[in-house]
Amino acid sequence: MQLSLGELAQRLGAELIGDADVVIRGVNTLKDATATDVSFLANASYRRQLSDSNAGAVIVGAKEAAEVKGAALIVANPYLSFALVTQMFDNRPQPVHGVHPSVVVAASATLGADVSIAANVVIGEHCVIGDGCEIGANTVIGDHCVLGRDCLLRANVTLYHDVVLGDRVQIHSGAVIGADGFGFAPDKGRWHKIAQLGGVRIGNDVDIGANTCVDRGALADTVIEDNVILDNLIQIGHNVRLGEGSAMAANVGVAGSTTIGKHCTVSGGAGIAGHLTLADGVHVAAMTTISKSITESGAYATGTAQMPLNEWRRSATRFRQLDSMAKRLQQLEKSHEGKA
Amino acid sequence: MQLSLGELAQRLGAELIGDADVVIRGVNTLKDATATDVSFLANASYRRQLSDSNAGAVIVGAKEAAEVKGAALIVANPYLSFALVTQMFDNRPQPVHGVHPSVVVAASATLGADVSIAANVVIGEHCVIGDGCEIGANTVIGDHCVLGRDCLLRANVTLYHDVVLGDRVQIHSGAVIGADGFGFAPDKGRWHKIAQLGGVRIGNDVDIGANTCVDRGALADTVIEDNVILDNLIQIGHNVRLGEGSAMAANVGVAGSTTIGKHCTVSGGAGIAGHLTLADGVHVAAMTTISKSITESGAYATGTAQMPLNEWRRSATRFRQLDSMAKRLQQLEKSHEGKA
Amino acid sequence: MQLSLGELAQRLGAELIGDADVVIRGVNTLKDATATDVSFLANASYRRQLSDSNAGAVIVGAKEAAEVKGAALIVANPYLSFALVTQMFDNRPQPVHGVHPSVVVAASATLGADVSIAANVVIGEHCVIGDGCEIGANTVIGDHCVLGRDCLLRANVTLYHDVVLGDRVQIHSGAVIGADGFGFAPDKGRWHKIAQLGGVRIGNDVDIGANTCVDRGALADTVIEDNVILDNLIQIGHNVRLGEGSAMAANVGVAGSTTIGKHCTVSGGAGIAGHLTLADGVHVAAMTTISKSITESGAYATGTAQMPLNEWRRSATRFRQLDSMAKRLQQLEKSHEGKA
Repeated sequence: MQLSLGELAQRLGAELIGDADVVIRGVNTLKDATATDVSFLANASYRRQLSDSNAGAVIVGAKEAAEVKGAALIVANPYLSFALVTQMFDNRPQPVHGVHPSVVVAASATLGADVSIAANVVIGEHCVIGDGCEIGANTVIGDHCVLGRDCLLRANVTLYHDVVLGDRVQIHSGAVIGADGFGFAPDKGRWHKIAQLGGVRIGNDVDIGANTCVDRGALADTVIEDNVILDNLIQIGHNVRLGEGSAMAANVGVAGSTTIGKHCTVSGGAGIAGHLTLADGVHVAAMTTISKSITESGAYATGTAQMPLNEWRRSATRFRQLDSMAKRLQQLEKSHEGKA
Repeated sequence: MQLSLGELAQRLGAELIGDADVVIRGVNTLKDATATDVSFLANASYRRQLSDSNAGAVIVGAKEAAEVKGAALIVANPYLSFALVTQMFDNRPQPVHGVHPSVVVAASATLGADVSIAANVVIGEHCVIGDGCEIGANTVIGDHCVLGRDCLLRANVTLYHDVVLGDRVQIHSGAVIGADGFGFAPDKGRWHKIAQLGGVRIGNDVDIGANTCVDRGALADTVIEDNVILDNLIQIGHNVRLGEGSAMAANVGVAGSTTIGKHCTVSGGAGIAGHLTLADGVHVAAMTTISKSITESGAYATGTAQMPLNEWRRSATRFRQLDSMAKRLQQLEKSHEGKA
Repeated sequence: MQLSLGELAQRLGAELIGDADVVIRGVNTLKDATATDVSFLANASYRRQLSDSNAGAVIVGAKEAAEVKGAALIVANPYLSFALVTQMFDNRPQPVHGVHPSVVVAASATLGADVSIAANVVIGEHCVIGDGCEIGANTVIGDHCVLGRDCLLRANVTLYHDVVLGDRVQIHSGAVIGADGFGFAPDKGRWHKIAQLGGVRIGNDVDIGANTCVDRGALADTVIEDNVILDNLIQIGHNVRLGEGSAMAANVGVAGSTTIGKHCTVSGGAGIAGHLTLADGVHVAAMTTISKSITESGAYATGTAQMPLNEWRRSATRFRQLDSMAKRLQQLEKSHEGKA
């Protein structure tokens, strides 16, 4: 893959300050880029690296263009343009088109045009696989699943039955979509399973990370709206609804029947209890526990800040005494007022 | 699937108030149910939906029966009856009986009657697969495993060697049972692996969620007793013992050699340190850290409650000063006493 | 497997006090060992079990040797010697050498001598599999991967393309190495994917647990240095670097571009934010949130200590009032000083 700076500027809709004939062969950070690399400045804290970078060209906003040593590609949103450039230089091996002879496809399944289905994939009854889909080796797709156009399922993905994906959905290895929600009725000290009769509906342009789980609904479906992005090792419980454009980092858990609004972000390791509603534009800090619904957009947190272990022990001991401390403080205040 | 209300009442042991000939074709919530659906009231907070529900019949306790608009099915434990009804209306695709030609079964393995073994399953030497077991596509079962009757392993499950399951055990996709416990001896700045010589023993009626890990024991076995239910993405360390009827929600971790009593519940994201003992009937709140043994049944928690991020920052700063605050409070109290 | 005590002493470099001809057939704890078992004392809290143990021999330090009832194997580091003994008595089923007929190997891949490749494994183009490697059933290895000598990949592992492993790397089932890092550029309310162009480089003697994820780098590689040990269900983000000999327990998450020093330990459930640097020899307590870089070795923690739920609620309520409490305390102090 190579592109002249002129072509690159054209594809990005960028203003080029520099030689349009220079050839670009890769993308790299300001620090590591060489004369055949394009780099980018999307975070002001790297701005002082501009003058030292050996990059053949740098994608920048108009304000920083003068500080670029080599060629500058001036755009409105440098981070977006960087994303587009990584897609141009994507080095992911291209799949072999067609269906590998080891694939097991049910007779009633329908495969679209231009699909690539790798070794040992298993596709169940009545599945519909859209045009241009790519399915990695050893992935299993249950009965009655529908994949839209240009979906990309990597190796070792599992879709249970009745999972519907929109277009351009990407699912990473080890992800499990449609496993039973965690529903059991207790009776006389024993748990009785509630069969999970709903499915999973996933919109367009959704990205699901490795080993992430999205459970099927108990009665209605679990729903992930368009353009939701989920990192690895996330748990999405049954009948959760994730609003359009929301993003979750790794190790997050969302318990059953919770609805999360549009354009929310949940940082790594956070946990959100069940049967809650989070408004649009809520941002949950890393490792935070959300146990009540949130009606106002904004950022929320729980926990404490890092301390050396010995100091932490003292604070943690006092935390147990907090109610007593508060009451004693009130007592002193009263007594002080009495005297004043 | 369809049932008359009369049949349904009989199967549930319910008292029917209504027309026994009405035909029920599905299960749904009070809000979404139609005239051919049965619904249920198990949670008092939905009680006011009774009068608006279009459900053909509602499973209720005796107290709420008069408020049901359509037919009422009166039972002692409506949630349990709901669970039984979901099982009656379970729409999970039924497996093809027999062994798919792509399955690789070791010569010394024994398969019971009426098993269903899907494509690309691999079964190791000396395994015994009980009658009526169903094993999903691409699942791998190591040597010397024993599955009781009517176990259900979904697609892409992994059992290492020497894993013993009771009857009616269900294991979801991506779960890994019997991987090595995390045991290493440090010496001169290097880690030396402790081979994990134990296995895993799982009782009857156990349910294990997607991508959950249960490690094999170091010397003795890791043990999960009857009717334990585990949600997704849970880590059970080596030589843990989980007591009968205990339940854990997603993202929980239990470190090695901890024993958890019977009928405990652990909410999502909680972590339990190693070498602890938790009594029967302990309930651990979501995202809680348990670092000491618990001898009394009851509920336990750690952490703080959610706050807007800016307010949280102030509390978190003060948390670091708590020990100093406590001492200053004592000082003031002393000084106040001196004056009083 | 059996060894005379004389042979065992020789292999461990131990001083034997007892009969060299006694035959040892297994390893067990002090409590459960019988006359044909070797046991060990590595933790002082089990010392009083020495006098009751029926073990045929016990591995101990010189100080405790006199308390051993049976034979004693005196060594400098009993826990290390125990590790070596477990390796001698390892009962893991040995793989069938060679390549199972169901394996799909790309024509351009190279397999070393003495490899064992189990059923349904898929190996991509240009892969190089080192001598003595063992690959478990249904594992998928993407294009351009390199495995050093004597690597052990268990069943259902996924390696994406451009993953390089050193020698003696062990990867457990469900682990996913090289999935896309979580990189997206926001623009006008939509997420645009940043193609992840880097790979993953893993050193020698690394152990990676079940369902653990190590993401590929965005531009440069994600790097795991020699002798790092990772437990199950861990998330390692893109461009993370883990220093030599560091260890992480289950459910830990490390966000992108963080560098962790050598010989660090991270306990279970901890989360480490992105773009941080942790010095060598840092120890992170269980369930801790690290949100700032750490320049000094030592132990760090966040959170609070376990409490009965009702007491915890009171402390948690007061935590929200902490800033106000601190200010009121200052006010009282000022007012008190004014009077003193």
